[in-house]
Amino acid sequence: MIFTAQIKVMPLKDLLDPQGKAVLGGLHNLGMKEANDVRIGKFIELQIEADSKEVAEKMANNAAEKLLANPVMEMFEVSVQTH
Amino acid sequence: MIFTAQIKVMPLKDLLDPQGKAVLGGLHNLGMKEANDVRIGKFIELQIEADSKEVAEKMANNAAEKLLANPVMEMFEVSVQTH
Repeated sequence: MIFTAQIKVMPLKDLLDPQGKAVLGGLHNLGMKEANDVRIGKFIELQIEADSKEVAEKMANNAAEKLLANPVMEMFEVSVQTH
Repeated sequence: MIFTAQIKVMPLKDLLDPQGKAVLGGLHNLGMKEANDVRIGKFIELQIEADSKEVAEKMANNAAEKLLANPVMEMFEVSVQTH
């Protein structure tokens, strides 16, 4: 069975996010003074072939831990849907 | 009122995603042969001060169109939650 895994990787709350700061500056320059506290992360979508949703979730978590997220600076959330 | 806007920006389906291809190669090297079709996008979270959810949604869409997404190469999805 093929599952779709979505992995959201965001900078940890306590850390500065220079990319987010730059985008906030850009939004303010465009006149959007109402915007605040921008944080920018990654969103990864992939297909996983597995026997069950549990196995697919385990694989997606494994991929995030080993390759996609840096635990020193980032946190991640995994969600898996049936295709 | 303060709203939290989440904006997901992904490469268009018909376009190549070299970053995704590279990550797929990395996953296969780690032994995850079950992974396929990796696509990598951005996830932006920001706070918006607005009178209503509709206004906040309009602002978030505006920000995505003008600054966060490149419509030639990317599509975006906006969701707004009450804080």
